[in-house]
Amino acid sequence: MAELRENRYGKTGIRLMKVTRKDGVHTVREWTVRVLLEGDFADVHLTGNNAMVLPTDTMKNTVYARANVSTAESMETFAGELVDFLLQRNPQVSAIEVSIDSAMWKRLRVDGAEHPNCFMHGSGEVQIATLRRTRTGEEVLTCGLRDLVILKTAKSAFEGYIQDDLTTLKETADRLLGTSVSASWQYARIVADGAATRTRNAVREAMLKAFAEHDSRSVQQTLFAMAAAALESVPVLTEITLVMPNMHNILVNLEPLGQSNANEIFMPIADPSGYIEARVTRA
Amino acid sequence: MAELRENRYGKTGIRLMKVTRKDGVHTVREWTVRVLLEGDFADVHLTGNNAMVLPTDTMKNTVYARANVSTAESMETFAGELVDFLLQRNPQVSAIEVSIDSAMWKRLRVDGAEHPNCFMHGSGEVQIATLRRTRTGEEVLTCGLRDLVILKTAKSAFEGYIQDDLTTLKETADRLLGTSVSASWQYARIVADGAATRTRNAVREAMLKAFAEHDSRSVQQTLFAMAAAALESVPVLTEITLVMPNMHNILVNLEPLGQSNANEIFMPIADPSGYIEARVTRA
Amino acid sequence: MAELRENRYGKTGIRLMKVTRKDGVHTVREWTVRVLLEGDFADVHLTGNNAMVLPTDTMKNTVYARANVSTAESMETFAGELVDFLLQRNPQVSAIEVSIDSAMWKRLRVDGAEHPNCFMHGSGEVQIATLRRTRTGEEVLTCGLRDLVILKTAKSAFEGYIQDDLTTLKETADRLLGTSVSASWQYARIVADGAATRTRNAVREAMLKAFAEHDSRSVQQTLFAMAAAALESVPVLTEITLVMPNMHNILVNLEPLGQSNANEIFMPIADPSGYIEARVTRA
Amino acid sequence: MAELRENRYGKTGIRLMKVTRKDGVHTVREWTVRVLLEGDFADVHLTGNNAMVLPTDTMKNTVYARANVSTAESMETFAGELVDFLLQRNPQVSAIEVSIDSAMWKRLRVDGAEHPNCFMHGSGEVQIATLRRTRTGEEVLTCGLRDLVILKTAKSAFEGYIQDDLTTLKETADRLLGTSVSASWQYARIVADGAATRTRNAVREAMLKAFAEHDSRSVQQTLFAMAAAALESVPVLTEITLVMPNMHNILVNLEPLGQSNANEIFMPIADPSGYIEARVTRA
Repeated sequence: MAELRENRYGKTGIRLMKVTRKDGVHTVREWTVRVLLEGDFADVHLTGNNAMVLPTDTMKNTVYARANVSTAESMETFAGELVDFLLQRNPQVSAIEVSIDSAMWKRLRVDGAEHPNCFMHGSGEVQIATLRRTRTGEEVLTCGLRDLVILKTAKSAFEGYIQDDLTTLKETADRLLGTSVSASWQYARIVADGAATRTRNAVREAMLKAFAEHDSRSVQQTLFAMAAAALESVPVLTEITLVMPNMHNILVNLEPLGQSNANEIFMPIADPSGYIEARVTRA
Repeated sequence: MAELRENRYGKTGIRLMKVTRKDGVHTVREWTVRVLLEGDFADVHLTGNNAMVLPTDTMKNTVYARANVSTAESMETFAGELVDFLLQRNPQVSAIEVSIDSAMWKRLRVDGAEHPNCFMHGSGEVQIATLRRTRTGEEVLTCGLRDLVILKTAKSAFEGYIQDDLTTLKETADRLLGTSVSASWQYARIVADGAATRTRNAVREAMLKAFAEHDSRSVQQTLFAMAAAALESVPVLTEITLVMPNMHNILVNLEPLGQSNANEIFMPIADPSGYIEARVTRA
Repeated sequence: MAELRENRYGKTGIRLMKVTRKDGVHTVREWTVRVLLEGDFADVHLTGNNAMVLPTDTMKNTVYARANVSTAESMETFAGELVDFLLQRNPQVSAIEVSIDSAMWKRLRVDGAEHPNCFMHGSGEVQIATLRRTRTGEEVLTCGLRDLVILKTAKSAFEGYIQDDLTTLKETADRLLGTSVSASWQYARIVADGAATRTRNAVREAMLKAFAEHDSRSVQQTLFAMAAAALESVPVLTEITLVMPNMHNILVNLEPLGQSNANEIFMPIADPSGYIEARVTRA
Repeated sequence: MAELRENRYGKTGIRLMKVTRKDGVHTVREWTVRVLLEGDFADVHLTGNNAMVLPTDTMKNTVYARANVSTAESMETFAGELVDFLLQRNPQVSAIEVSIDSAMWKRLRVDGAEHPNCFMHGSGEVQIATLRRTRTGEEVLTCGLRDLVILKTAKSAFEGYIQDDLTTLKETADRLLGTSVSASWQYARIVADGAATRTRNAVREAMLKAFAEHDSRSVQQTLFAMAAAALESVPVLTEITLVMPNMHNILVNLEPLGQSNANEIFMPIADPSGYIEARVTRA
């Protein structure tokens, strides 16, 4: 006999564009929301009785309806509002996770000034907030970002590694170091709505500055330096997990073509890539 | 001060196409391999000392070199060979995870017969095997698949759910049910190389048959039926986790256009989609 | 001063899933439709007067409404119906192009038999029909397909090419030949609805058989053989254009690792790829 | 009998990252190059004789080798250098087209200043230059860009269009107008290497300013205004073709949920989208 264990359900890919207007200046937030419910759903799986099921279509409606009345400025706060609203109305639910991805829009610059109501899509970087809260009051808020693609063309070496009969990589004191950062982190306490984006940006800026300034002997070392810098700069930060693939730019061997390559000509490759992952906490 | 916690590193996206030939009949395996190492890597993070670092480039070389001498037919067995080879040569490593994705190639049919050395790319379905083994002998083998896109146009209803002031969804006794199945499962013991693919296919076939025959009152109920069928059909299977988004085909409202829609005209949408996830074990 | 030249507008990405049912057997067609209008649209560009503009939203409605009443079995015929319907109702329009992409669904096999109402998504191959018709009766119907990914592991060589000081490629009498075929072709006359898919399949099968059986000295030669085979097999076919990238599987050099590679271990690469394109007509 | 007509071949997806260093400041150019040759290639198609075939692998080598010695700053100039180099060495070739896509990297800002050797990937916008030159001296240089995603939240209406029995769209005096601009244009003469990027940016800036300031009654009218502004701002520009899909943000109907939507809550949709295309010349 089969036995139902952990299960959850909900709606993913709820796309919201919210435009707010103040004194002629417009602000756009493009968020993609996921809502997942846990609770007493054995019957629906086992007998097909849907009496306890809040339709995922209603979750979608809920996102739009709550966004319409919310004054939240941050994903973190809006996620909390959604969770509380749904928990309160759905006694069959024991825990809810809301996750929000935010796309990057920046103001268009026209004649050197930021335009009040025109925008350009920025990079593919995505800001993320995920809040899980139970009916009994436990909660975990995870903030983060992904697809932050950065590159340094100086201060990156890779030497002194294990050499064996399967080694073909050449040591280098000067390589390109490109990566696409995924980061997720936690705070010691919920940060207020008005401070959430500021705090998020502080984590991000600390990482970027460390990346730029670090004299890298490996991606691992740079990753740790970035995490340490974030922890040092943002006191409320308690831990951060970084995933930093090593997206290779291969030095092209021009010797068979009768030329030498003064570390200038590289071939970016999509696959394979290195993969470096670590969690770093406040000691 | 910052403290390093869990960390691992390796190579992802190692793409391998292996062609084997026997009596004029060729077989192709297109695998994408990921190798991740855990171990004593504090120094590399903290001081930039790379003495313990097996370069990820060497992991790539290792995959090709081992594939060249291996007689493994299944991803499951080859993953085990890779793990053992690397564990044995790298005393600084405490655990290794190898994950393999297999693309789908099928033989081209020419004049009604399968061609011995021509192939056509099948669907986007991917078969997966992930093996993590520690130096002390613990191991978890997870088999699975993803992007198995299926659709049923009969025997699917969704009725009797919670109705509240945010409900706009209409109940239906006859809807399309489309999903993209992701499944991962575990066996009671390692299945021998020659039986691994057969066992994998048995899990898959049991799920597909249940999907086709199930009189569905919800995606949840169908998901559970599929998991239960797999457990019943494959004795060595101990548990299975299914993720089945509800990929909506919306019935188009033709009334404003002066027509009625006899459940024939639908609009597939990419977003949003339902999301249903459950783990089911042998009771 | 700026002058408006060629212009057209319309709707793209109109996604239609049509389910037809007969004697308990269901058929699904998943089509993505694009409608483009040409005509007297100077005013809308120059003055913002929209009096002549059929909204693209109405084109979308038109696709669903016509699909609902149509008995067309083929994309080719439905495209013609759409064009005629829109031309007749919109005197400001001088020409219309309708293009339809068809996704691949195949019947699920359960216990060895095709299931009457369950389906599995097939490969990413897309079938295409594009019809442009003017009010004055000129018309061009272009049929085609794309993303037909095929591979042969025998009977493919590449030798005898130009060698110069920038050559590093090694000649080979036995390589893998993989490609993703894009084809577009034209018929001497409109093929009747019932025969359209059969004729389309005949072109496709002729190409695949030629690919499989050809003793290839280059992608160019194989491309020509495939086009010639299609022209020979399908008398109504007048010309065909093929685009066949050479999607490389690189033989992995295992010598630095102390092994030899018996033409078995390859690395598929996404980029770069060869590109071969030719139009072939009936002589 | 089958007859070979127009044909060409070459290499696509040649990925180049070139790093130049001057006084401690690094510059990166990430270009993806495509090289296509036309010429006397009947034999290779018809007989498999490869004597006239420059391997596409050699074209790839050529791109890296020429990039290594080139001082060209612009894609336009480097494309010309590549074409001339290959034409001169390959008498069997009658015409060559080189097309270059440039990815967007911008300097990382650290402590308010641009960093000399750290970069962040910008938006997905791609800059394009395509040059085709024949042995007899004809040439067409097409410059352009694609995936420039912009949005205006004011000054966009759509009213006064055709209303018929298939119309369900509501007129609006205030909608969001989002698009992903693809543009291609031509100059009256080759622009010098040092001026090419400046001229390109002038076309782009003129379009963006017009988009921001235009009081839009339709996408068509805005497209024309953007093209006209580019022609007015850049005297050497002779014509420009714009493709501007209308990427819809649908106003969410909150009335069934008991709320009114003050033009603030929208649902972005991926499909379908409008499609607007026009070529505009200097009158």
